[in-house]
Amino acid sequence: MIEPFNDEYFMKKAFSEALLAFEEGEVPVGAVVVSNQKIIARAHNLTETLNDVTAHAEMQAITAAANMLDGKYLNDCILYVTLEPCVMCAGALGWSQIGKIVYGASDDKRGFKKFASNALHPKTEIVSGVLSTECAELMQEFFRQKR
Amino acid sequence: MIEPFNDEYFMKKAFSEALLAFEEGEVPVGAVVVSNQKIIARAHNLTETLNDVTAHAEMQAITAAANMLDGKYLNDCILYVTLEPCVMCAGALGWSQIGKIVYGASDDKRGFKKFASNALHPKTEIVSGVLSTECAELMQEFFRQKR
Repeated sequence: MIEPFNDEYFMKKAFSEALLAFEEGEVPVGAVVVSNQKIIARAHNLTETLNDVTAHAEMQAITAAANMLDGKYLNDCILYVTLEPCVMCAGALGWSQIGKIVYGASDDKRGFKKFASNALHPKTEIVSGVLSTECAELMQEFFRQKR
Repeated sequence: MIEPFNDEYFMKKAFSEALLAFEEGEVPVGAVVVSNQKIIARAHNLTETLNDVTAHAEMQAITAAANMLDGKYLNDCILYVTLEPCVMCAGALGWSQIGKIVYGASDDKRGFKKFASNALHPKTEIVSGVLSTECAELMQEFFRQKR
């Protein structure tokens, strides 16, 4: 059976957000939150634009999704994000009790798996490596241009 | 020498913020950010009011302080918070490179020390236990009333 709305489909939407961040001179990370196969929140990293270290794509996506649902728990939602969440974002995702997290590239330096492996809710499902090459290459290109 | 602006002085200000949270039916955690012995940001937990798990006192205080300073790094600042920061807040404080964190009560269940002990910037100084009894009793009273 053809499944048009699979993990790759939604990761491409998150990747589009990452491209927006790239164009704005932001570390290119993008995210979408999906509920019942519909995107209910889109966000990209805005730490430079807002002068705010808390303005990661995931944080904004969590806040926007909760606003959309009028409730702070995201148990029935999936977060798609181009990069492995950091400790801050994993902590926030833990509080949100989000149902599933799908991320693209791993982040060995700042990712939560190394620094806070138990930050998520025990019921949260994790999938990694979706479009990881594209997501990682975008990050590499960003830092190459910054040098 | 008398030092009127010591850690206890500023923790009392954070405690006042926690009392506001208590009155609003929020888990009573308060925070202030101090720069050059002046309070540049005050905040209290607003997760229920805003329906947003990211609205912890520390997160709001970091954002407000960065706005005030027009820069996202808080190296010369001190955060006073009534409760040990959680994983999310410790991650955010790590990104902010804040100079010093002073907290009141420990949080054995959700505090960062247990779940993400390396989340902070290596140069961040930590002081714990300032007005810890008052801070802990306020939390206990809140959860006693909720039962």
